[in-house]
Amino acid sequence: MSRSSAVAGLARAWFLALPLLLAATVADAAKVTLDKSNWGLEVGKDCVSCHQKSSAGLAKQWEDSAHAKAGVNCMDCHKAEPADADAITHEGHVIATVVSPKDCGRCHTTEYEEQKGSVHAEAVSLIAAKIPALGHNVGGPAMEAAGCAQCHGSVVKVRGDGTLDPATWPNSGIGRINPDGSKGSCSSCHGRHRFSKAQAREPTACVRCHFGPDSPDKEIYEASKHGMLYASQRDEMNLNAETWVAGKDYTAAPTCVTCHMGAAGKLPATHDVGMRNMWSLNTPVSQRQHLVVLEDGDKLELPESVEPPKRGAELDKGDGTVGKVKAVATPQRRREAMSTVCLECHAKPFVTNFMRQFDDVVELFNEKFGKPATAMMDELYAAGLLTPVPFDEPIEFTYWELWHDEGARARHGASMGSPNHAWWEGMYLVGRNFYSRFLPEVRTVAGQARGDEIIARHLADVAGHAWLKAPQRGNPILGYRPPSPVAEATPATPAAPGATP
Amino acid sequence: MSRSSAVAGLARAWFLALPLLLAATVADAAKVTLDKSNWGLEVGKDCVSCHQKSSAGLAKQWEDSAHAKAGVNCMDCHKAEPADADAITHEGHVIATVVSPKDCGRCHTTEYEEQKGSVHAEAVSLIAAKIPALGHNVGGPAMEAAGCAQCHGSVVKVRGDGTLDPATWPNSGIGRINPDGSKGSCSSCHGRHRFSKAQAREPTACVRCHFGPDSPDKEIYEASKHGMLYASQRDEMNLNAETWVAGKDYTAAPTCVTCHMGAAGKLPATHDVGMRNMWSLNTPVSQRQHLVVLEDGDKLELPESVEPPKRGAELDKGDGTVGKVKAVATPQRRREAMSTVCLECHAKPFVTNFMRQFDDVVELFNEKFGKPATAMMDELYAAGLLTPVPFDEPIEFTYWELWHDEGARARHGASMGSPNHAWWEGMYLVGRNFYSRFLPEVRTVAGQARGDEIIARHLADVAGHAWLKAPQRGNPILGYRPPSPVAEATPATPAAPGATP
Amino acid sequence: MSRSSAVAGLARAWFLALPLLLAATVADAAKVTLDKSNWGLEVGKDCVSCHQKSSAGLAKQWEDSAHAKAGVNCMDCHKAEPADADAITHEGHVIATVVSPKDCGRCHTTEYEEQKGSVHAEAVSLIAAKIPALGHNVGGPAMEAAGCAQCHGSVVKVRGDGTLDPATWPNSGIGRINPDGSKGSCSSCHGRHRFSKAQAREPTACVRCHFGPDSPDKEIYEASKHGMLYASQRDEMNLNAETWVAGKDYTAAPTCVTCHMGAAGKLPATHDVGMRNMWSLNTPVSQRQHLVVLEDGDKLELPESVEPPKRGAELDKGDGTVGKVKAVATPQRRREAMSTVCLECHAKPFVTNFMRQFDDVVELFNEKFGKPATAMMDELYAAGLLTPVPFDEPIEFTYWELWHDEGARARHGASMGSPNHAWWEGMYLVGRNFYSRFLPEVRTVAGQARGDEIIARHLADVAGHAWLKAPQRGNPILGYRPPSPVAEATPATPAAPGATP
Repeated sequence: MSRSSAVAGLARAWFLALPLLLAATVADAAKVTLDKSNWGLEVGKDCVSCHQKSSAGLAKQWEDSAHAKAGVNCMDCHKAEPADADAITHEGHVIATVVSPKDCGRCHTTEYEEQKGSVHAEAVSLIAAKIPALGHNVGGPAMEAAGCAQCHGSVVKVRGDGTLDPATWPNSGIGRINPDGSKGSCSSCHGRHRFSKAQAREPTACVRCHFGPDSPDKEIYEASKHGMLYASQRDEMNLNAETWVAGKDYTAAPTCVTCHMGAAGKLPATHDVGMRNMWSLNTPVSQRQHLVVLEDGDKLELPESVEPPKRGAELDKGDGTVGKVKAVATPQRRREAMSTVCLECHAKPFVTNFMRQFDDVVELFNEKFGKPATAMMDELYAAGLLTPVPFDEPIEFTYWELWHDEGARARHGASMGSPNHAWWEGMYLVGRNFYSRFLPEVRTVAGQARGDEIIARHLADVAGHAWLKAPQRGNPILGYRPPSPVAEATPATPAAPGATP
Repeated sequence: MSRSSAVAGLARAWFLALPLLLAATVADAAKVTLDKSNWGLEVGKDCVSCHQKSSAGLAKQWEDSAHAKAGVNCMDCHKAEPADADAITHEGHVIATVVSPKDCGRCHTTEYEEQKGSVHAEAVSLIAAKIPALGHNVGGPAMEAAGCAQCHGSVVKVRGDGTLDPATWPNSGIGRINPDGSKGSCSSCHGRHRFSKAQAREPTACVRCHFGPDSPDKEIYEASKHGMLYASQRDEMNLNAETWVAGKDYTAAPTCVTCHMGAAGKLPATHDVGMRNMWSLNTPVSQRQHLVVLEDGDKLELPESVEPPKRGAELDKGDGTVGKVKAVATPQRRREAMSTVCLECHAKPFVTNFMRQFDDVVELFNEKFGKPATAMMDELYAAGLLTPVPFDEPIEFTYWELWHDEGARARHGASMGSPNHAWWEGMYLVGRNFYSRFLPEVRTVAGQARGDEIIARHLADVAGHAWLKAPQRGNPILGYRPPSPVAEATPATPAAPGATP
Repeated sequence: MSRSSAVAGLARAWFLALPLLLAATVADAAKVTLDKSNWGLEVGKDCVSCHQKSSAGLAKQWEDSAHAKAGVNCMDCHKAEPADADAITHEGHVIATVVSPKDCGRCHTTEYEEQKGSVHAEAVSLIAAKIPALGHNVGGPAMEAAGCAQCHGSVVKVRGDGTLDPATWPNSGIGRINPDGSKGSCSSCHGRHRFSKAQAREPTACVRCHFGPDSPDKEIYEASKHGMLYASQRDEMNLNAETWVAGKDYTAAPTCVTCHMGAAGKLPATHDVGMRNMWSLNTPVSQRQHLVVLEDGDKLELPESVEPPKRGAELDKGDGTVGKVKAVATPQRRREAMSTVCLECHAKPFVTNFMRQFDDVVELFNEKFGKPATAMMDELYAAGLLTPVPFDEPIEFTYWELWHDEGARARHGASMGSPNHAWWEGMYLVGRNFYSRFLPEVRTVAGQARGDEIIARHLADVAGHAWLKAPQRGNPILGYRPPSPVAEATPATPAAPGATP
C-alpha cells in the first residue's frame, strides 16, 4: 500500500465505525440459528393446497420464494394467538392477515432492529401534523387511505368482527402502525409473497413513494449517470448475490440501495435508510443534522446548530417518553459514510467537489428563497394579514410548493446528479414562482405599499436579489432589443421590479 | 375442495358467465380453420424480395414474425380489390396501404369481434364533440393529425389519386375509421410488421396513449406495486406463451393486459378492453355504468341511475340507428369480473377493501369537487356571466382540467395503486386548484358579492368544505404560530376564506 | 431491381453524399493504425494495482472495458505533460484528471473530428447569453455548476494548486471547455470507465440532458411506437455489434442514436448529432436551417431565408474569427438524410406524410403563437411598458415558457411521434397559456384598452384566432347548454373574448 492510500485508510477508519456503532444496539439480536426447528408448521401445508386453487398466483409467488425453499410456509408468518388484536379464525386456524416487521424480525433480527429505529419507521409521526390541513381539508378522508397512508403507513384498525377497516388496510406504508404495535411493513419494498432480495435491490423498489412532485427520486435517478448505467448494464448487477458489496459483487451501476443502505468497502449494509443523509432536504430551510442514537435503539435528529448531546444524556423523544443517548453521529460523519460508497467508483477530488456542488445548491435555496419566504409568511400571519387557517389563501399554496415541491426537487436533483431536476424542474421554478407569484401575492395580501415595504425589507440583505435593482439591461432571450440611446437615457419604469398590479 | 372454497366457487360462477355472454355474439365467428389454403399468395414473394432491399428493416420485422413462419406474406394482408376505396396499383399489383381490423379479422375472427364492440373502437366518436373547441380552436387543424387522431384515430381520407391524405395518415389510432368502414387499428398495440403477441402484453404496449396529464396510466403503473414487480421480474413473465393465464402461465406481476383483457382462472381473455371497468372515470362526475350488449355486437354504456333495459328492448345507438338489447352487465358484474383477476394473487378481504378505497376516492371527487364545480359552471353560463364560447375565459380551462386532468389522475391513481397520483398529482391539485383558482375565478367572473353568494350556496351542504368556516386554527406546516390569546380572541379576518381580491 | 426502385436509388444518391461531404474534412484523420506501440504504458499497471484497492469499482469498470482488453490503461488516457494547464503530480506521476475529446481523439480520430464540429460541441456558447438572466438572476451561481453546466458543459477552471474548481468540475457536459481548449466530454454519453459502445446506443444514454420540461425527448421516445418496440424487444437490438446499421444489424426498434447518428443503408454513422435536423425547434419561431461546413471543420447554421453562401465565401464565425465555406447542406438535404433512416422500416408515402404532419405542427406554432407573441413582447419592450430587465415581470416567464417549454414539447412531440407531448403537454398548453395567461397579462401590462388594441392588431390576420370572434356557440365539453332561443338571439357578452379583468 502506498503512503497516500495508507493515510486515506486511516482517515477513513474513524467514520467507518459509525454504522457499527449505530448497529451496536442489536448486538443481542444477532441472527438466530436458522434451522427447521423454528419453522415449517405442519398445518401450513393445508393453507398451500387450498390457496393453490383459490389464489394460484399468490401461492406460486410463495413457491418461488426463498421461504419455500427453506421450508417456511404460510402459517409460520400468519399464525396468531387468540389474544392478538387482529386474530381471526380462518378454516379452523387462528391467523392474522397483517404480518408485521416484528413477525419478520423473529428470523430477520438484524434487519428488524435496523429498520425499527429508522426514519422509515417514523413515517407516520412525521406527517401527523400535516394530515388535518392537507389530507383532510384540501383533500378529504378517503385520501388518507388511498394517498398519504399508502406511503407513510396507516394506523391499522381492527373492527369489532376481527376484520380490518378498509380506511386503514390494504396498506403497506413504510411506517404502518401494526396491530402488534410495531412500525413498518417489510412488503413495502420486498413485494409479497416472494419477498425477494433481488427485487428490493432494484431502483424500482422505491418508486411507489419516491416519485412525483415532492420527491421525484425515481425520475432523478433515471436522469442521472447512475440511472443511465443501470439501464444499460442491469444484467451485470448480480442482484441475486448473497452479499451485495459495491465494487466487489457489482460495479455496473449503483441503485438506491447501494448508496442509502448498501455495503461498500468496509461500510456495512443497513436497513436504516436515512443514516447517511446529512441534510434535511424536505423542509422550508435545510439543516445539517446530528443523528442521535438512544439506548433503546430509537433515533432522533437534531440540527447542527444545537450542541450535540453527551452520551448518557436524557432526551425527550417527542412522544412523551425519554431516551438515553448512546451515540451521536455528526453531520460530517454521516456525510463521510455516504462518501465511502462514492469512493468505490470515484476518486476523492470528484467526491469532494460533487458534494460541494450539492451543498452550494442547498445553501442557495436556504438563503435566497427558503429563509426570506418563511420570514415573510411569518410576518403576514403575525400581522393578521392571513387567516391562521392553512390553505384558504392562494399564497399558502405558493409558499408550500416553493419548498415542498420545486424546492425539494432542486435539492434532491443536485444531490443525485440530475441537472434537469436541479434546475428546470427545481430552482428555475423556485425562482419563477418566487418572483412572479409569491411576491405579487404578498402585495395582494398586504396591499401594494405595505407589500413593497415587507418585500424590500426581507430581500434587502440577500445578495441573490440584487439584480432586481441592477441597472436595467436587455437580454436577447426575451427578444428585447434596446431602444435608441436617447430613450435608454430616460428609461421607462412602468412598475416596481417583480410587481404585478 | 373445502366447504368455503366451494361456496366461493358458486358465488363466482354467475358472473364468470359475463364475458362468455358478451362474447356470444361471435359464436359464429369462431376461428376459421387456419391452413395454407387461406393464405400464402404466390405474388407476395415478389414484394419480399424487393422490400428486402428498399426497406430492409420492414422486411426483417416480418421475417421474424409468426406470420412469416406460418407462410402469411405481404399480399395476404395488403391485397385489395380494384373497387376498394383505397386500392392503388403498386409494381403492377392492386394493394391497399391500410390494413384494417376487418382484414386482420379474416383470420383473427374472435379478436376482431371483441374489438369491434369495444370502447377502443368508438374512440373517434367519443371525442367528436370535443375536437372543435380543443383540437381546432385552442390548437389548430394540424393538431388533429399529430395529436388527437394519433390516439383516438383519424377518419382516413383517400385523395383523388388514390394516395392517403397526410392530414389523416400515417395513423394507428385505436378507433381509426378505415376506408373499408371498419374501426380501429391492430397495429396500435401490435407494432408493425411483427405483430407480436408478447410485445402487446407488455405494459409499454399502451403507453403511447395512456400517458400524460389526463391519463397517466403508464406512470401510475410504474409507481404501483404491480409495476415494481414487473420491472424486477419481467424475465419470468412468460410473455410469449401460447395462452397467458394469470396465476397459471405467469405470476410475477400483472401488466395492463392482465387486468383489462387477460385470462385469469376461469375468466376468459377478451379484446374488449373496457368491459371490466365499472366506473366512468374521465368525466366531470363519475358514474357506475351498465354495459349493454346489442344483438349486432355493438355496445352501449348507461349510467346505473337508469333502469337497465330488458332483453329485446330497442335502444338508440347514438348514430341514428337502433339496436336490440341482447344482454346487460350491471356495474356490479363488471366489478366482479375485474375482481376475479385480483383474486389470483390477493385474498378476498384485500380485494374488497382495496375496491372500497378506490370507490371512496371517486365519491369524494364527485361530491366535493365534481358536482359543485359543474353546477357553478352551469349557473355562470345560464346567467350569461360566461360567453357560450368554450375556452375564451380562464375559468373554463380551470374547470376542464379540474376533472379532465388532476381529477382523472386522482381517480386513476386510486384505481391502480399509485398513492403519488391519487394524491400529489391528483386530489391535492384538485383541491389546490378548486380553492385557490376556481373559486377566485368565480368571484372574478360574477363579481365579488355575487360570486360569494354563488359559492356559499353551492358549498353549503357539502361536508368536505366545512373546514373553510371552522374555528381558525394554526398549522405547523405553514409556519403559523398562533398570536397571543388576546389577539386570538379577536381574530383578524382579512378576507373571505378562499378569496383573492 | 425494378424500374421504380432504380429511380428511387438515383433520387437518393445525391443526398447520400451529404454526410460523406461533411465528413470529408477528416479524410486526413482516418483511424490511426491501432497497435500496441501506441499505448500500454508500463507505468499504468501501478495505477491499476493501487486503484483496485482504493476504488475497486472504478478499476473493475475499466477491467470490463474494451480498453482493458486492448491493453489501454489509465496512463494512456490520464498521462499529462508538466506544462499542461491541469497537470498534477499523483503518486509520482504527472497526470491530468480531465480526459478531453482531444485525448480520446488520438485513437478515435473520426469520432473526434465529427464531434468537434457538432452542435453538441457548441453547447456552452449556445447558452452563454442566457446564463446571466436565468442561471444567475432567477437561480444563482450554484445553479450554473449543478444545473446549466452539467448538460451544456462548464469552462473547467484549474486552481492555483492544480486542483479543479468545484464550481466547474465534476462536469461531463457535452460542450465542456477543457483545459486543453478542446470542447466536449466523451464520457457524457459513454459512461466512465467502461466507455461502452453498447451503452451509448441505448436511448438512456441521452436522458440526463434530453429530459424534462424543455426537451422531454426521453419521455417522448418512451411514449412513441419506437419506444414501445424498444422496450419489448431490447434483447434483439444487437447493441454490442461492431457495426450497427439499421435494417441490417438490427430491426427491432430505433433508438436516439439510430436516427440522429446511426448508419442506415448507405447513410454512414456520424458523431455530429445535429446534422440531420432541418428545423431549429428550440426557438421562439422555428426556421429551416442551412448547415454550412467550413474548411476548418467548424459548422454554422443559417436560416433558409438567407441565400446559402457559395463555396469559398468567408463567414464570421461569431467568435471574432472568420471561416471559409467548404460546403452547404440545405434544409431539404438534411431532411432527406434523416428520411433515409426512416425508409429502412417505413415506405416512402409513410415517411413523406409523417414529415408533413410534423412540419404542419411547426408552422402552426410559428404562425399562430410564436410570431404574434414575439411581436407583442417586442412592442411592449419598445413602448417601455416592460422594463428591459428580463424575468422581473410575470409575462416574461409566460412568454419564455410558451416557446421554450410547451412550445418545444409540441414541436418535439410531433417530430418523434408522441401524441401526448404534441398535444396535451405541448400545443394544448401553448393555447391555454396564450389565451388564459399571456393575453390577460398583455392587458395588465398595457392597461385594458391599449392591451385590447395591441392584441386585436396582432391577432387580426391570424386565421387560427378567428374563433374568438366567431358566432358564439355552446360546447358540450364544458357543460354549457344553450339558453332559450330568445336569449341566444341577444347573447350576453360579459367580456371581450380571452379577457380577464
